[in-house]
Amino acid sequence: MRSNGGETIQLGHGDGGVLTRQLIKHLFLRYFKSTQIQEMDDAAVFRTGGRSGAITTDTFVVSPLFFPGGDIGRLSVCGTVNDLAVNGAVPRYLAAAFTIEEGFGVPVLERIVRSMADAARESGVQVIAADTKVVEKGSADGIFITTTGYGPVRRGLRLGVRMIRSGDRLVVSGNVGEHGLTVLLAREQFGLHAEIRSDCAPLADVIDRLLSECTGIRFLRDLTRGGLATALTEVAESCGLDVIVEESQVPVSSACAGVADILGLDPLYLACEGKFLAVVDARYAEEALCCLRQHPLGSGAKLVGQFRTGKGQVFLRTAVGGTRRLLPLSGRPLPRIC
Amino acid sequence: MRSNGGETIQLGHGDGGVLTRQLIKHLFLRYFKSTQIQEMDDAAVFRTGGRSGAITTDTFVVSPLFFPGGDIGRLSVCGTVNDLAVNGAVPRYLAAAFTIEEGFGVPVLERIVRSMADAARESGVQVIAADTKVVEKGSADGIFITTTGYGPVRRGLRLGVRMIRSGDRLVVSGNVGEHGLTVLLAREQFGLHAEIRSDCAPLADVIDRLLSECTGIRFLRDLTRGGLATALTEVAESCGLDVIVEESQVPVSSACAGVADILGLDPLYLACEGKFLAVVDARYAEEALCCLRQHPLGSGAKLVGQFRTGKGQVFLRTAVGGTRRLLPLSGRPLPRIC
Repeated sequence: MRSNGGETIQLGHGDGGVLTRQLIKHLFLRYFKSTQIQEMDDAAVFRTGGRSGAITTDTFVVSPLFFPGGDIGRLSVCGTVNDLAVNGAVPRYLAAAFTIEEGFGVPVLERIVRSMADAARESGVQVIAADTKVVEKGSADGIFITTTGYGPVRRGLRLGVRMIRSGDRLVVSGNVGEHGLTVLLAREQFGLHAEIRSDCAPLADVIDRLLSECTGIRFLRDLTRGGLATALTEVAESCGLDVIVEESQVPVSSACAGVADILGLDPLYLACEGKFLAVVDARYAEEALCCLRQHPLGSGAKLVGQFRTGKGQVFLRTAVGGTRRLLPLSGRPLPRIC
Repeated sequence: MRSNGGETIQLGHGDGGVLTRQLIKHLFLRYFKSTQIQEMDDAAVFRTGGRSGAITTDTFVVSPLFFPGGDIGRLSVCGTVNDLAVNGAVPRYLAAAFTIEEGFGVPVLERIVRSMADAARESGVQVIAADTKVVEKGSADGIFITTTGYGPVRRGLRLGVRMIRSGDRLVVSGNVGEHGLTVLLAREQFGLHAEIRSDCAPLADVIDRLLSECTGIRFLRDLTRGGLATALTEVAESCGLDVIVEESQVPVSSACAGVADILGLDPLYLACEGKFLAVVDARYAEEALCCLRQHPLGSGAKLVGQFRTGKGQVFLRTAVGGTRRLLPLSGRPLPRIC
């Protein structure tokens, strides 16, 4: 993305794929020069009062507002809680900012706020600040919610792409792709119905257990926009190692696989809102897997791949024995799934 | 605002006046039960790592995006920095979340981001986290920006409405109403042109000087949505004391007074983005005034009123000797001025 006079923002600039990365690199990193933002993690870590805290912000524009398994309110809490959790922070406080279109139903707003309050309780966070703006009818699509989360970072914990070593194993905490597919189906433009629900859930508790009980955890990342494939391409590029993913091991429900196939979508690129990847020292990978599987939000965890010396690329070893390279999400954007 | 089936959000729910207060009381306070949010300050204070930090969030939907004296980028930084500063925090980190309409010009976005970076530098804060969402053409009006700020609270400082005592003096840091009026004029729907600029500025430095050099500062509040009058009605109601404001002492530029008069608007209800009120122990009021006047952002400071035992109401003593009660902004909303 060069800033010549005629260039405009496309839907793809918000889908978490190649265009989003370009926007971040060429615009935000260029002007907002800080150590934290240069690292392009989902949360920024800073020192305050002698210890480290993490902060993360996300706007939620999901359409439709309600879908099987969740709604914009639940999503806006879980998404931010999860960004903190995967960065080793203990989610504690949330600030919520609402942009509402004139004419929006107060009972609908109440349902959303109640859902946020429920998700906050479930996640162990307090909503301590809020703001409301109202724009004229036609100037927004219903409601957008921005949540910003704060939490102290666990002492002595060292998580980060720089910790990843050749030989490390890749764990995925459960079935991928369900949130993205559920939201797409909820738009009813495909006339398809399937038994799929969003996996939208707060990961603070399962990650707390993993980090408390297990050794050798190098890196965690929740699998949102762009899905597992996009997350892995970013991780591989950042750490400079290749990742080999065993396609047959990646957990995908048969309902999800079937519907994605009909729509010509790859579940590896579809967003989750209650799943994460963990990179674990190979010696402790089985132990981490066992630990995860004892938690309801990690019961479908699988070892799906391994890091090795390379050029920072991601390869998928297919069920039939072939290998193909995975690239970040690019092209057909999947807008407004979160 | 009761939540019956037919009720909808109106523009007034976002103007900082009576309807906004109702929405906060009946919806947000009801579901988000936390000590911090019950206090309804512009920033929430919490303990972390043995000391206090403050967090505040605001969405900016100003229309138009550019106006004399500022733009949505500068506003989104100053507004959040000022909310922290008036709560006794030292603004340190910002998170920024962008909701952008498909088709928005990249050069315009770049101009806004550059303006944010400049304002952040001027305010002494770092932008450490960001998020971008893109919605389809027609689903948002150009760009909305949510900024969330964090800063440690000064040790030993006790600011708050509960600190206010009968006899305390009210100081206003300079001319009121200029931001709101500038934005209204920039919409060009009135065919009026005047030499008025937004006062949009970061108040961290002037407030730092006031709090470092002066004694007896009880309470600070920036004068945004709803203007001086609405801010005072909230303060009076919260502390249970009356406030008597001398109309002749409230600083209003003649250009602002003239244009407001033509439009039938009262400058006391128009937003500022670079002014604040200070409640000061009467014994130290002159000292605070001198201190403020030495700073470019407080050079027009005036003593405008006094608190006294009463029922939590605000009265304006007019130039001709009469007295009338000031009520919070209600009725004709002034939408999207921040």
